[in-house]
Amino acid sequence: MSERPHVPLGPGVEFDTVRRLLEQWGPHARGTGDDAAVLDVPVGRRLVASVDTAIENVHFRRAWITPSEIGYRAVTAALSDLAAMGAAPLGVLVAFVLPEPWRERLPEIAEGIGMAVADADTLVLGGNLSTGAELGITTTVLGHADRTLRRDAMRAGDHLYVTGHLGGAGAALAAFLAGRAPTPEHRERFTRPVARLAEGQWLLAHGATAAIDISDGLAADAAHLAAAARAGVELVLADLPLVAGVRARDALASGEEYELLVAAPQPLDTDAFAAAFGTPLTHVGRVVDAHPGEAVVTDGGRRVAGGRGHDHFQG
Amino acid sequence: MSERPHVPLGPGVEFDTVRRLLEQWGPHARGTGDDAAVLDVPVGRRLVASVDTAIENVHFRRAWITPSEIGYRAVTAALSDLAAMGAAPLGVLVAFVLPEPWRERLPEIAEGIGMAVADADTLVLGGNLSTGAELGITTTVLGHADRTLRRDAMRAGDHLYVTGHLGGAGAALAAFLAGRAPTPEHRERFTRPVARLAEGQWLLAHGATAAIDISDGLAADAAHLAAAARAGVELVLADLPLVAGVRARDALASGEEYELLVAAPQPLDTDAFAAAFGTPLTHVGRVVDAHPGEAVVTDGGRRVAGGRGHDHFQG
Repeated sequence: MSERPHVPLGPGVEFDTVRRLLEQWGPHARGTGDDAAVLDVPVGRRLVASVDTAIENVHFRRAWITPSEIGYRAVTAALSDLAAMGAAPLGVLVAFVLPEPWRERLPEIAEGIGMAVADADTLVLGGNLSTGAELGITTTVLGHADRTLRRDAMRAGDHLYVTGHLGGAGAALAAFLAGRAPTPEHRERFTRPVARLAEGQWLLAHGATAAIDISDGLAADAAHLAAAARAGVELVLADLPLVAGVRARDALASGEEYELLVAAPQPLDTDAFAAAFGTPLTHVGRVVDAHPGEAVVTDGGRRVAGGRGHDHFQG
Repeated sequence: MSERPHVPLGPGVEFDTVRRLLEQWGPHARGTGDDAAVLDVPVGRRLVASVDTAIENVHFRRAWITPSEIGYRAVTAALSDLAAMGAAPLGVLVAFVLPEPWRERLPEIAEGIGMAVADADTLVLGGNLSTGAELGITTTVLGHADRTLRRDAMRAGDHLYVTGHLGGAGAALAAFLAGRAPTPEHRERFTRPVARLAEGQWLLAHGATAAIDISDGLAADAAHLAAAARAGVELVLADLPLVAGVRARDALASGEEYELLVAAPQPLDTDAFAAAFGTPLTHVGRVVDAHPGEAVVTDGGRRVAGGRGHDHFQG
């Protein structure tokens, strides 16, 4: 790891902390001792890079989840952006902002990060430690691909699919916010999301062209795709794959799922997907010429919800 | 830019903010509209990656420097890690944590970031926006190199050099902390450091083998090199290149300089360096067999300071 020590922490304390992190992560980290990590992008592949931040009391509350789950979730959410590109991971850089009261919990946070990179079959390549007033984990993910899934690639007529089951993360969040304990299954969906990395690569290889990972909720993320492609999206409420105990309308709005929503010009082999990954790939709608930039949800042919997306990247 | 919107900000506000940032940066940013940036590492080159965080009241205080300077300094400090590797920049990802009162100053922060990437002849490739309680800027730098300068590569007998002039950043910090206004020159060294990117590549090409960018102060960073190489370092106090108005002993401890300290087995051509970059390259000492892991400072042959480094990366 490279880091820049600061007065409040002191080089000695910081270096000892980094050494302990590297020892703890063992084969799941690569500490080079240099100012930066050096690695190879496989020949013929492009570099894919993204960054994501998790902040206490913005993305999670300490009362809801354990330090290990905080680490797991922060890194998995970042890796999910690689999944949405159909990219394979090269590794992650993790920049911590650690208030003094959190310092003694760092080994637990690191434990969760180690599990997340192990589950994604990747490595911690570097990072940074800083003091600060609130806990923050900023994860940079590096990956590679020869071509990628895109947000703007879907076309009218495309089929829309989602991976996994939706609604668990939102149900857990609703329970947390109401002061109730979520069911174990819902809690698990919130605390241990899955970055669909192998799934994203499979989908790209098998004909998917556009994808987004579901962070704002299926309906909102479908609208983002619609806006990027300037096409309309129609989702069929009754077709949504639901986590047990979740209503379809709640699943539409359930954010931080980190499942993939993909578009494909030809039908995808959902049986082969399920056999390969042990989780379903479900047809949930179509891309249409009508209402460009909007995602409409139908139930029995009637429009029951709709929203306009944000095409925010054409600057 | 890829980003993950959060409830307190709202997708619309966040997307509008990102669009404005991309417009503001113009040719100094590349917004892909996707979940991640996709770029090419030149054939035959390795990827070099590092991350660095700047937090309000840890790395700077609002009363000291302008929002533009905060942005400039944060990104330049991160780029400096590429310089210390002898790597060429590919671009940066910038993750902001923005408290509500800072939101209206974001264009000014972004202005400084735009100047920093322009000065480094590189690009903003992506980023993230989050709310939070304190301003934070986490910059991931991506670069490329065929081989790199290393922290652990110096050997007894090597010559030690530093780029530029030392002490200005420390003098400015001392003035700020004492409630005084620093001199314009000292202030400029604190607010507008230089990432010695071209210099680092030149030094690598011309025989330097080990390097570190000066963030903790020359003496401390020399000790870090000494620890990594398990060799001793001797710095000659009278030889230090000083910013006007700074004493040599203060320059030794002046941190956040972002000048490079390099080791080379053979003498480097300091005239050619100065001609190429308009800033000096100064011989400041030698690597020795004695006192391994320690950086000693001599004045008239007498030891006047010494400190042990941290070999913190061998975990």
